[in-house]
Amino acid sequence: MLGNFTYCNPTKVYFGKDALSGLDEELPKYGKNVLLVYGGGSIKRNGIYDAVLEKLKKHGKVVTEDAKVMPNPTSEKLKEGCARARAAQADLILAVGGGSVIDYAKGVSVSAYCKEDPWTKYYLQMQDPSDGIIPVGAVLTMVGTGSEMNGGSVITNHEQKLKIGHVFGEEVFPKFAILNPEYTYTLPKYQMVAGFYDIMCHIHEQYFSGTDDNTSDYVMEGLMRSLIHSSKIAIDDPKNYEARSNIMWTATWALNTFVAMGKSTDWEVHMIGQAVGAYTDATHGMTLSAVTLAYFRHILPYGMQKFVRYAVNVWGVGAEGKTDEQVALEGLAALEAWMRSLSLVMDLKTLGVTQEMLPGIVEATFIMQGGYKVLTKEDVMEILQESMESKE
Amino acid sequence: MLGNFTYCNPTKVYFGKDALSGLDEELPKYGKNVLLVYGGGSIKRNGIYDAVLEKLKKHGKVVTEDAKVMPNPTSEKLKEGCARARAAQADLILAVGGGSVIDYAKGVSVSAYCKEDPWTKYYLQMQDPSDGIIPVGAVLTMVGTGSEMNGGSVITNHEQKLKIGHVFGEEVFPKFAILNPEYTYTLPKYQMVAGFYDIMCHIHEQYFSGTDDNTSDYVMEGLMRSLIHSSKIAIDDPKNYEARSNIMWTATWALNTFVAMGKSTDWEVHMIGQAVGAYTDATHGMTLSAVTLAYFRHILPYGMQKFVRYAVNVWGVGAEGKTDEQVALEGLAALEAWMRSLSLVMDLKTLGVTQEMLPGIVEATFIMQGGYKVLTKEDVMEILQESMESKE
Repeated sequence: MLGNFTYCNPTKVYFGKDALSGLDEELPKYGKNVLLVYGGGSIKRNGIYDAVLEKLKKHGKVVTEDAKVMPNPTSEKLKEGCARARAAQADLILAVGGGSVIDYAKGVSVSAYCKEDPWTKYYLQMQDPSDGIIPVGAVLTMVGTGSEMNGGSVITNHEQKLKIGHVFGEEVFPKFAILNPEYTYTLPKYQMVAGFYDIMCHIHEQYFSGTDDNTSDYVMEGLMRSLIHSSKIAIDDPKNYEARSNIMWTATWALNTFVAMGKSTDWEVHMIGQAVGAYTDATHGMTLSAVTLAYFRHILPYGMQKFVRYAVNVWGVGAEGKTDEQVALEGLAALEAWMRSLSLVMDLKTLGVTQEMLPGIVEATFIMQGGYKVLTKEDVMEILQESMESKE
Repeated sequence: MLGNFTYCNPTKVYFGKDALSGLDEELPKYGKNVLLVYGGGSIKRNGIYDAVLEKLKKHGKVVTEDAKVMPNPTSEKLKEGCARARAAQADLILAVGGGSVIDYAKGVSVSAYCKEDPWTKYYLQMQDPSDGIIPVGAVLTMVGTGSEMNGGSVITNHEQKLKIGHVFGEEVFPKFAILNPEYTYTLPKYQMVAGFYDIMCHIHEQYFSGTDDNTSDYVMEGLMRSLIHSSKIAIDDPKNYEARSNIMWTATWALNTFVAMGKSTDWEVHMIGQAVGAYTDATHGMTLSAVTLAYFRHILPYGMQKFVRYAVNVWGVGAEGKTDEQVALEGLAALEAWMRSLSLVMDLKTLGVTQEMLPGIVEATFIMQGGYKVLTKEDVMEILQESMESKE
């Protein structure tokens, strides 16, 4: 643990089958105007919408709805949400959904009264919020992004073909988060496993960086092992409460800032994946799974010791009598086998990426400094090319 | 993850060599009257006192000192501190020290304006705070108790021969904590290793409970492995920043409520250790080390699977071709070898316990319900007898 850091995570989490009753404690803390943010309407089919609305009515809230938040929320939609929040004079933004909905709610939170253009200020220039922040609360219905307990907000600008995440400070974190694992049961399998991989990738991005040997590395190994264990149960039995609840909690801790403290981090897979997302609108987790193995093979020689440690401590690879490279590759093979067992998308073509898109995706990929190798644009192109088709 | 829970930990941690500069952010948030709480005066010898006082002066604080907090702070001392806090009209209690000093500060925080007898209300009857809470900040100089990021407060009543901990809610957690690993360098080895074992014991108490297989169990295995790794470095090289910083951060997370979420927990070793402490005033961590192995041998048959998992995942014991009991015992042997390598106290006689004290210690031991076996008073006596002398 070498770096200086400041850690603060004030989000209050209500977890479990009765989590929604947390609204009875939280709603009275805010004024009467609530902007209710949600996505495509699945919450109307599975009863969550009704349950939330009942709580809002019970506490006398005046509700303005802001629905149809898309899987990769856009800067256009953000403007619309800001207008709604201002018109409603929202005292609280209640986001009911997955990472996209909560990311979007944070975007509206800092942008509604922002005097400049929010896309430019927050996502292109990464400035701090000003002009007021509307408090956000979250009811989580899809697991993976960790948005329920952090300051992350990813917004896509289709005109500029950019998908960018701003990590805001603790003043933008959800004030509270309702985590009921049962709310994730009705999610289609494709979205469920994409979320599982998003969790794994979050941990990878923070684990595969630095040569230190610190508390976070050990904790992340634990989180990965927990995820692997529970995902194997959930894939066959999606309504297994124990598995789904552990995955939900693991997802939160994979990206609520704790495991990044004092460490360098990478995030290059997210940078490539987000560029792919800007071109294809593909499901976030699948953009990550499609490029991970090619990326890891590129950086493996530069981070050999960590890949060996990963193979042994996370995947239980035996190291005796083997070279470091053999051990490391066995770790990646175990990762790949697990990914295939989840039916993740393992190539870019399946996501709709064409050869014509590749130069633009390369251009849209931010180059990070924290990984074992700082990529060149040529590296990114090679990784994309290698990811176009999956070789079994 | 089966239980419902609410998680909230609002303490802001400033970590690293520059951590004290966090006071520049925090002190302006409070009024001018500060009660400065510390222990026996070692902070005057190692420069921490001067550094803190300089910050307090810089921010125009009126400082009232409350020194000589003893290693096991007493209910008598608590009364004295409350009088001081009231006389000073303290706006902030700044605790500079280890767990005892911070535990005591929390006690003063909730007791200064308490209309009833604080010992009775909080420690005997476990009531919630009323009548006002004075905010607490912490500058940590000794690692182990986790008091810097939780609501725990252990107070000893010598007259009643009771040492009792109350775990207060988040409103009593330190508002901020300054964690500079270098502040722990000058601690005598005896205190240092007692702190190391206190950390391990905190994790044990939460790990050895329940038959579930949840995220927290995996995270705790990571924390234990990190502690074992770093303790082996620190024992030979106490000024190794990386080791001491990782241990400091591990200690905080071992007892800041995270790993207990959704789990049952035990805490019986602490109950026995605290009863020993009430009779001997021995160093907390050593009261735990002296009784752990006898306790584990008593409960092992009832929690066999978890002891097997512990042996394999924490201590790297190979399980192939062995019975569960063999694996579990090899795990305990590895624990014992590590404890001896730290020169922990492994018996009660060394701590000054006499045969005459044992019936009283048994009486003062709270029986917990969360362990693999709910002890009888006879069990406690057997554990104490077996712990009187260490068999190598």
